[in-house]
Amino acid sequence: MKICVLPGDGIGPEITAEAVRVLRALDLKFELEEALLGGSAVDATGSPYPEATSKLAREADAVLLGAVGGPKWDTLPREQRPERGLLGIRKELGLFANLRPAILYPELANASSLKPEIVAGLDILIVRELTGDIYFGQPRGIEVRNGERYGFNTMHYTESEIRRILRVAFEAARKRNRKLCSVDKMNVLETTQLWRDVANELAPEYPDVELTHMLVDNAAMQLVRAPKQFDVMVTGNMFGDILSDEASMLTGSIGMLPSASLDENNKGLYEPSHGSAPDIAGKGVANPLATILSAAMLLRYTFAQEEAAQRVEGAVKKVLAQGYRTGDIFEPGTKRVGTREMGDAVLAAL
Amino acid sequence: MKICVLPGDGIGPEITAEAVRVLRALDLKFELEEALLGGSAVDATGSPYPEATSKLAREADAVLLGAVGGPKWDTLPREQRPERGLLGIRKELGLFANLRPAILYPELANASSLKPEIVAGLDILIVRELTGDIYFGQPRGIEVRNGERYGFNTMHYTESEIRRILRVAFEAARKRNRKLCSVDKMNVLETTQLWRDVANELAPEYPDVELTHMLVDNAAMQLVRAPKQFDVMVTGNMFGDILSDEASMLTGSIGMLPSASLDENNKGLYEPSHGSAPDIAGKGVANPLATILSAAMLLRYTFAQEEAAQRVEGAVKKVLAQGYRTGDIFEPGTKRVGTREMGDAVLAAL
Ligand SMILES: CC(C)[C@H](C(=O)O)[C@@H](O)C(=O)O
Ligand SMILES: CC(C)[C@H](C(=O)O)[C@@H](O)C(=O)O
Repeated sequence: MKICVLPGDGIGPEITAEAVRVLRALDLKFELEEALLGGSAVDATGSPYPEATSKLAREADAVLLGAVGGPKWDTLPREQRPERGLLGIRKELGLFANLRPAILYPELANASSLKPEIVAGLDILIVRELTGDIYFGQPRGIEVRNGERYGFNTMHYTESEIRRILRVAFEAARKRNRKLCSVDKMNVLETTQLWRDVANELAPEYPDVELTHMLVDNAAMQLVRAPKQFDVMVTGNMFGDILSDEASMLTGSIGMLPSASLDENNKGLYEPSHGSAPDIAGKGVANPLATILSAAMLLRYTFAQEEAAQRVEGAVKKVLAQGYRTGDIFEPGTKRVGTREMGDAVLAAL
Repeated sequence: MKICVLPGDGIGPEITAEAVRVLRALDLKFELEEALLGGSAVDATGSPYPEATSKLAREADAVLLGAVGGPKWDTLPREQRPERGLLGIRKELGLFANLRPAILYPELANASSLKPEIVAGLDILIVRELTGDIYFGQPRGIEVRNGERYGFNTMHYTESEIRRILRVAFEAARKRNRKLCSVDKMNVLETTQLWRDVANELAPEYPDVELTHMLVDNAAMQLVRAPKQFDVMVTGNMFGDILSDEASMLTGSIGMLPSASLDENNKGLYEPSHGSAPDIAGKGVANPLATILSAAMLLRYTFAQEEAAQRVEGAVKKVLAQGYRTGDIFEPGTKRVGTREMGDAVLAAL
């Protein structure tokens, strides 16, 4: 059971260190090996996704990632930006299925900017396609045409790309409340008309799941108005980028939200939903829980260690109940701790 | 001063009727003429944007629209769907600048799903480019390639398209709190890298406006987390579709929100931000205030009748203060009225 650990940039090294401690504390024989991704990789090798990292990631069964990016690398040429590393590894490993839960922990209900009655008990799973769409479409670029600059990108999906992500979403809905909402913009974009057609064609194979469709603009509204109407949502890469971030912010505690990006064989890359938070990097105050919960997803999806996954998730719930809070989720009356102490608390709760 | 009135579908005829009564009550000599758009136009002529409508709209100085669409027309071939009418008139009239205010009226603060302290006093203006981007990009379609269906669309912008919408946004920010946030996805899409470059090039011409940039996924989060950080937001057609709907739903009272879509010479199409609400069509219960406020925008932008615009807006504020509420914004303790009575109340307040 080989895990490639990519600490990344900003708070990445601090938060992955805690998740690694949690993984090591389990009675499972993992082989863990570290490599560089993102800005730190650019600094060391000139590339955000160096060949050594690619090799290790290809050989491993799973990848645990902290976060990439920071202002330091924002002015580099496109090909050297940290996010290129992330897009590169997703594409190379064929991680087409991005699973992003948006869960509101009862203890953290106050953190939400929404009224308690609107978000209490929120539990949505967003399934985002991750290796297609306008992210990777050709042709693309900036050219001079008719004497002025012209920027262009291509949105596209094949029916087999759509079908495989929809299957992941239907299966996920089956294990939850059997409601799947597919999000598109079929009234304007042919690509997403095909998306809707393929969803409708697949639906009879999942008679136990209720499939609905929603336009992306309406979905962005409904997430604000009444997010609990949703169980599983599935959509393309671009819309999924926007909606999954919107959904995670509904909880007000994005420092708690993990994610998994899977290939056809449950090889996966696991990372927190939040970013690299350069402003607090190195200060030992970042919240490691989303990364620890990402490690739990790793146990569940890649290694089918459901029991170990639940142990980790249970430990996280316990430390919340015990009142431990990093700065991002702190409220008066709770115990403010740093990254390392939060890791200690989770280890103790294990 | 010629106004083309397009009642459209669903509640469209009811709500435009009230806005027309308001316009007629002002001491201004408008020539008003009605035509068909959307589903009702398909039923009557086979086209969602018939030639007679196009002719009238081209001749008029301004267009006042209700809303288009409904389940009745959802299964028609693409070219006959009601929204084609809307896209057609936007493109033909060159209405590239869509202005969508998201304003929370103090009387309606409870309607929001967000906590009062997060949204009280909300006043954002979203400026959305409306005639370019992936909405109109070629090539597009669904084809069979390598034995399977393949859907594709093209996102694109020229620098002059970007520049003209940014100018509208900079000018709008000047008349407000001088803060402009430009939203893009420059870390993935070249089209929006060009968008950011052009924004930065223009900024020195507006030294009194503070320009910031935000990635679209972050913008979707920030609107939920702390919407009052924004003054004016500007973005492309696709991202603007999503973000403007999200922003309007933050108020919880989308039945109050108008919009304007302008060309280079302040010719404009004015319509409520909400849809055609087929479920309540014909019942006389729809909220006409967003359409009446759209008429106020028409007075302001196309006819430079600032005073008349403010009279109408003042009358709407007054009826809210008097406690008149249609069903969508009703709360116990206020006076529930229908569409026509709400129109009567506004006329009385004028
Ligand atoms: C960093 C960026 C390229 C990435 C994306 O847009 O996919 C990020 O926003 C995410 O959602 O993981
Ligand atoms: C009806 C549809 C084509 C339209 C759009 O996407 O522009 C609508 O959502 C809007 O925002 O006016």
